Amino acid sequence: MNIEMIRAAQKRLEGHARRTPLLSSPFLDEVAGRRLFLKAENLQHTGSFKFRGGWSALSALDDAQRKAGVIAFSSGNHAQGVALAARAHGSTAVIVMPSNAPQTKIDATRALGAEVVLYDRATEDRKAIRQALAAERGLTLIEPFDNAQVIAGQGTTGLEIADQARDAGITSAEVLVCCGGGGFTSGIALALEAEAPDMRVRPVEPKNFDDVARSLRSGQREINAAMSGSICDAIISPQPGEITFPILQRLCGPGIIVTDDECLHAMAYAFARLKLVLEPGGAAALAGALFRSDEIKGEAVICTASGGNVDAPMFQRALSEYGDQI
Amino acid sequence: MNIEMIRAAQKRLEGHARRTPLLSSPFLDEVAGRRLFLKAENLQHTGSFKFRGGWSALSALDDAQRKAGVIAFSSGNHAQGVALAARAHGSTAVIVMPSNAPQTKIDATRALGAEVVLYDRATEDRKAIRQALAAERGLTLIEPFDNAQVIAGQGTTGLEIADQARDAGITSAEVLVCCGGGGFTSGIALALEAEAPDMRVRPVEPKNFDDVARSLRSGQREINAAMSGSICDAIISPQPGEITFPILQRLCGPGIIVTDDECLHAMAYAFARLKLVLEPGGAAALAGALFRSDEIKGEAVICTASGGNVDAPMFQRALSEYGDQI
Repeated sequence: MNIEMIRAAQKRLEGHARRTPLLSSPFLDEVAGRRLFLKAENLQHTGSFKFRGGWSALSALDDAQRKAGVIAFSSGNHAQGVALAARAHGSTAVIVMPSNAPQTKIDATRALGAEVVLYDRATEDRKAIRQALAAERGLTLIEPFDNAQVIAGQGTTGLEIADQARDAGITSAEVLVCCGGGGFTSGIALALEAEAPDMRVRPVEPKNFDDVARSLRSGQREINAAMSGSICDAIISPQPGEITFPILQRLCGPGIIVTDDECLHAMAYAFARLKLVLEPGGAAALAGALFRSDEIKGEAVICTASGGNVDAPMFQRALSEYGDQI
Repeated sequence: MNIEMIRAAQKRLEGHARRTPLLSSPFLDEVAGRRLFLKAENLQHTGSFKFRGGWSALSALDDAQRKAGVIAFSSGNHAQGVALAARAHGSTAVIVMPSNAPQTKIDATRALGAEVVLYDRATEDRKAIRQALAAERGLTLIEPFDNAQVIAGQGTTGLEIADQARDAGITSAEVLVCCGGGGFTSGIALALEAEAPDMRVRPVEPKNFDDVARSLRSGQREINAAMSGSICDAIISPQPGEITFPILQRLCGPGIIVTDDECLHAMAYAFARLKLVLEPGGAAALAGALFRSDEIKGEAVICTASGGNVDAPMFQRALSEYGDQI
């Protein structure tokens, strides 16, 4: 896993993935106490950065693999990214999703042409389901983060951040990334190591699901006690990946922890000040920049907005609770 | 008023105004029955295209005028655009606003450093207020649409649309523009006449405030019967402008009329499918593309999203009423 793979993925993604804008607002600068920039990956195709990894992986397969089809497991964003990338490559996708994933994500994955297989997160073993399906049909597994081509795709976001920040006169900053298994975080960190070495990547996780922050402290891959109990479904993973953790360890940290309520509050800020729809997990980095400014150093902070696939009732909840505190 | 003024404005805006993205979604294509693109001017600085006109006008003043300051009247979007442009040019702005404008717009205008003067739309004459203030303090009036430099600034949106559509393989399309006094519409029409002559501009207005559509039919500047009674506050003007109407007559039409409910429904679609926050008036063109497809010709439609400055309760209303019909 290296910067050349990210550069190669960028070439394969050109003209297919969106170059999402790097946005800012004087109102958010004031709350954050420094210049704040937001990389709006909620505006990526399928509403999250996951399309980059999906496209990168599908475009790296050989013809026989594409013809046989792919399989992925995901609560929704990786699902949609792989589904659309598979359709665009003339392949087919089977997506294994937890039955309690947001309805909007399940519906959109089906509408993008994928076959969705639901399972009960509490009682069923997704790994067994997946392996049976993969073996039975000869499907290629597209891992959500522990896959070099997926990480390479997510890393293209980092190449864009370096470029766009430079255009805005910023070469030194902390870069806050919404972090689940670490594919997005490690990809961005590798890209910035090469293109903007004065930037430091900080993984941001929801309270009680801080496996990456704890792993960075202990030096080994820690496991979360639970896999549900946060509204940040997009960035809940059991533990850092085998491929991602060494990269996170070498380049990232320390981790930043935010609460679900802070994510809802950040969603309301993004609504009012940036005119963007973020999902709770996609607002974690912005929440870190706004509400953990004492843990951040320097005059500029760049946050990723990893996704915007949120059901209407959850968005209404953010506006009801925080619409008058923005 | 000509294309050269728009090109000159584009040079003055470079590095200051955002080049907003042209977005699309396969889900919206399906509803519209053709390829649909949306120019996301809600992501412009201050949350609407009005920043372009404000910057264009301020940057065209001489030093003495900038030092004396400017005055504008606006329900909110022009207000914020002029306020931020004035502050960035080291000038000062007095903004005359109706007291029933959305609170978010009044607050943001003040926060951007402008002096806000409120008046009662029903009982007070804004023209008299404005003229008294302008005369007393030697302020330069920045008209919201009947001002050549303002139109030139808004027209830069059209130059970008032509470029971005060409990159997407589109040279022929109907271009739907949210239309109040016609500054945005006429500026875009002039730009496209020069850069994309196979595109036709269609003004979109709210029901009962269709002065432009009626004027295009009758050949003279018709007046709206009322100035309130629609949630589309951003695009309610008494009649087409003196400068804008001849341009609209030569290049645009016929007009498209949408209801307030259709604008709310379009806001819910933009939320779910594009992850964008639109205000009711800013969603009018999208509503036209989605719900008036029988009045539109050709295989592609491009709609402008003119702004996203909406209070939380109005956005929640859109999601409550239409969140399950998207």
